[in-house]
Amino acid sequence: MSLALGDIAARFGCELRGDPDVEVSHVATLTNANGGSVSFLANAAYRDQLAETRAAAVILGSDDVDACPAAALIAENPYAIYAHVATELHPPHSLVAGVHSTASVAADAQIPDSCEVAPGGVIESGAVLGERVYVGPNTFVGRDSHLGDDTRLMGNVSVYHGVLIGARCIIHSGAVIGADGFGIAQESTGWTKVPQVGGVEIGDDVEIGANTTVDRGAIDDTVIGNGAKLDNQIQIAHNVTIGEHTAMAALTGVSGSSSIGARCLIGGASIIAGHLSICDNVMLAAGTGVASAISQPGAYGGFPANVEEIGRWRKNVIRYGQLDEMARRLRKLEKQLAKLADDS
Amino acid sequence: MSLALGDIAARFGCELRGDPDVEVSHVATLTNANGGSVSFLANAAYRDQLAETRAAAVILGSDDVDACPAAALIAENPYAIYAHVATELHPPHSLVAGVHSTASVAADAQIPDSCEVAPGGVIESGAVLGERVYVGPNTFVGRDSHLGDDTRLMGNVSVYHGVLIGARCIIHSGAVIGADGFGIAQESTGWTKVPQVGGVEIGDDVEIGANTTVDRGAIDDTVIGNGAKLDNQIQIAHNVTIGEHTAMAALTGVSGSSSIGARCLIGGASIIAGHLSICDNVMLAAGTGVASAISQPGAYGGFPANVEEIGRWRKNVIRYGQLDEMARRLRKLEKQLAKLADDS
Amino acid sequence: MSLALGDIAARFGCELRGDPDVEVSHVATLTNANGGSVSFLANAAYRDQLAETRAAAVILGSDDVDACPAAALIAENPYAIYAHVATELHPPHSLVAGVHSTASVAADAQIPDSCEVAPGGVIESGAVLGERVYVGPNTFVGRDSHLGDDTRLMGNVSVYHGVLIGARCIIHSGAVIGADGFGIAQESTGWTKVPQVGGVEIGDDVEIGANTTVDRGAIDDTVIGNGAKLDNQIQIAHNVTIGEHTAMAALTGVSGSSSIGARCLIGGASIIAGHLSICDNVMLAAGTGVASAISQPGAYGGFPANVEEIGRWRKNVIRYGQLDEMARRLRKLEKQLAKLADDS
Repeated sequence: MSLALGDIAARFGCELRGDPDVEVSHVATLTNANGGSVSFLANAAYRDQLAETRAAAVILGSDDVDACPAAALIAENPYAIYAHVATELHPPHSLVAGVHSTASVAADAQIPDSCEVAPGGVIESGAVLGERVYVGPNTFVGRDSHLGDDTRLMGNVSVYHGVLIGARCIIHSGAVIGADGFGIAQESTGWTKVPQVGGVEIGDDVEIGANTTVDRGAIDDTVIGNGAKLDNQIQIAHNVTIGEHTAMAALTGVSGSSSIGARCLIGGASIIAGHLSICDNVMLAAGTGVASAISQPGAYGGFPANVEEIGRWRKNVIRYGQLDEMARRLRKLEKQLAKLADDS
Repeated sequence: MSLALGDIAARFGCELRGDPDVEVSHVATLTNANGGSVSFLANAAYRDQLAETRAAAVILGSDDVDACPAAALIAENPYAIYAHVATELHPPHSLVAGVHSTASVAADAQIPDSCEVAPGGVIESGAVLGERVYVGPNTFVGRDSHLGDDTRLMGNVSVYHGVLIGARCIIHSGAVIGADGFGIAQESTGWTKVPQVGGVEIGDDVEIGANTTVDRGAIDDTVIGNGAKLDNQIQIAHNVTIGEHTAMAALTGVSGSSSIGARCLIGGASIIAGHLSICDNVMLAAGTGVASAISQPGAYGGFPANVEEIGRWRKNVIRYGQLDEMARRLRKLEKQLAKLADDS
Repeated sequence: MSLALGDIAARFGCELRGDPDVEVSHVATLTNANGGSVSFLANAAYRDQLAETRAAAVILGSDDVDACPAAALIAENPYAIYAHVATELHPPHSLVAGVHSTASVAADAQIPDSCEVAPGGVIESGAVLGERVYVGPNTFVGRDSHLGDDTRLMGNVSVYHGVLIGARCIIHSGAVIGADGFGIAQESTGWTKVPQVGGVEIGDDVEIGANTTVDRGAIDDTVIGNGAKLDNQIQIAHNVTIGEHTAMAALTGVSGSSSIGARCLIGGASIIAGHLSICDNVMLAAGTGVASAISQPGAYGGFPANVEEIGRWRKNVIRYGQLDEMARRLRKLEKQLAKLADDS
């Protein structure tokens, strides 16, 4: 597969500075590019690498075009254009339609001929797959779960019963969708399990990372909106709601019954307490602990129980590093004051 | 399945205010309930929803009974009564006894006829299953491991060799029980692996969440007591001991050789250092880091290396948010003092 | 299997104080040892247990030899000698060469006769296995991935396509190697997936813990050097580089494109931001958040965005616990000053 620069410019709405007939066959970083490569510059930290690149073409913003030694594909959003070009040059692996002989499919499961069920795939009773669904090696789809068209479950994915997943989703290996939420009631004799009778409802175009867990609801469903993107090793507890197009980085945890709005950006390793609500368009710095509702869009950071507007938080973080010095200054001050008081 | 309110009251020891012959068939939240629903109110945050509920009956405490528009099942511990009623109305999926044709069972493994081994299940040599054990799709049970009666391993669970799991346990998908602990010895040439020759011993009535890992012991066993409940994505290192009826929320980590007492409540994303002991009846706030032993029952919170009684910790958390202001006040104070000293 | 103490001393370079003909057959802790046991003392916290041990022999340092009631194997690095002796007494489970009948192997995959592919193992097209490779139950190896000699993948491991793993590696259950990195480009309509076309390159003698995830590179590869040891539930994002012989404890996260040097020791639950570099020989305390590059070898600790030399960090941690008291003292000081100012 290769693309002419003129075609790229036309299809993706870039301005081309260079020969439209030059062809590129693969993507590369600025540093490792060669004559068939298209590269991109979207992060100023890599600007130094532009001058030395041997790429045939670079997708970049208009500010960088003069420093570009190769053909330039000028875009307002170079990273997004790069994403489209890379998808064209490196399309997802094609499905090999059919159910492998070592897969197990319940008699009443609905699996269109266009689907691929890889070796060891297990489709339980009542499950319904859309067109061109991929079920990877040793992945299971529980009773009565539904997968929309073109959704791909990679290998070793676990989808419990009664889970609804929309179209064009990607679920990575080790993800577990629909396990029981952590519902336990304390009695004098110990803990009694609270049955988790809700399900999970995942919209279209959602991507869920490796080893991420999304628990089923206690009564109503856990819900993940269209276009949400979850990185690896995230924990979504029962009855959480995640709004459309919210992106969440790895190792984040959201406790039960909390609701996160649309178009939020949740930094990695953030922890969000239960039974609270975060409005649309909130950005959380990595490692933020959220213990109370956030009702104003904006950027926030902070340690558990103490979430603050991000500017104020950054100041406090710096002060934390000065704490030992502050305590010493305070002690000195107290001595001076005591001396002053004695003298007067 | 449905239950008459009078039967519920009699069997679970509630006081009924309403028609004992009314039947309920399913549980529902206060908000989404309808005429066949039984709901509950156990968290004051949801009290507002009581007035509008269309549930046939609500399980609640005596304080809330007057505000209840439906039949009331009055209980001291409404959440526990709800758990029992919900279990009755929504029992776990029944086993389909037998070993699926795609499962692999070693010739010398002991599997009673009452067990279900799902497609792709693997039972290695010397493994012993109790009555009515469920081994989910693509789950494996390693050499010489034992599973007690009525224990259920969901799909894609990994149980290494030499692991003992008691009766009535539930192990969720992606959990890994008995992987090697992180034992490495430093030498001038790099790291030498320390064989992990201990096992894992899990009591009765233990639930282990999705993608939680419980490492085998280095020499002696890692031990999880009866009735302990572990949420998702928890890491239990080698030779940890967890006491009976201790509950631990998601994303928590316990380092090697630490011991946690009975009936503790460990908040999510807590980190517990190695080679220390936490006594019985300790509650840790979410996100707590424990770096030294806790020998008094009580509630604690705090950042790594600095665990405090929870009241003191909450005050410090608030002060942290005032740090920038404190530093400014301190600087002002110093200037004033300097001026005073100059003047006098 | 048993070893004579004289042989141990000769083979592993210890000094023996005791009868060289005594044989030991297994390892044990000091407390649980019996007449056939060899134990060790490498952590001063367990010194109290030495006097009462019933072990046949104890591997220990010269400082402890006089307090040892049993035969003593005196070593400069007792833990490393213990590791070698334990490996001898408790060797890894032997392979049963062959491909199980329920495994699925692509016609063009290369699998030497010395390999074991367990039940449900899946080896995709173009995969190449070295000699004596173990592929555990329900583990899959993706297209064109390579595994070096003597590497062992335990059960339920996921290796995506195009992953290179060296010799003598151990990958534990639930680990996912080569899932897509979290590459998404923001557009007005939502997120566009950025294809992750790089691979993963893992050196020799690497151990990767249960449920750890190592993402494939966005363009170039994610790289883990020879002899690196990763504990459980670690997240390695796309294009991270980890140097040789670096050891990383559980629950740690490394964000995209960061580089960690050789022989580093990363404490558990540490979080390392993206696009930064940590030099060789860095030690991070557990729970450290690293938000900027570290260019000097040494030990560091700290909360996110505020990494400090470890001595300074420990002082600040202590001060954090005094914050409430500091704030009160400050307020008192201000009042005193105000009074002083009024009086003068």
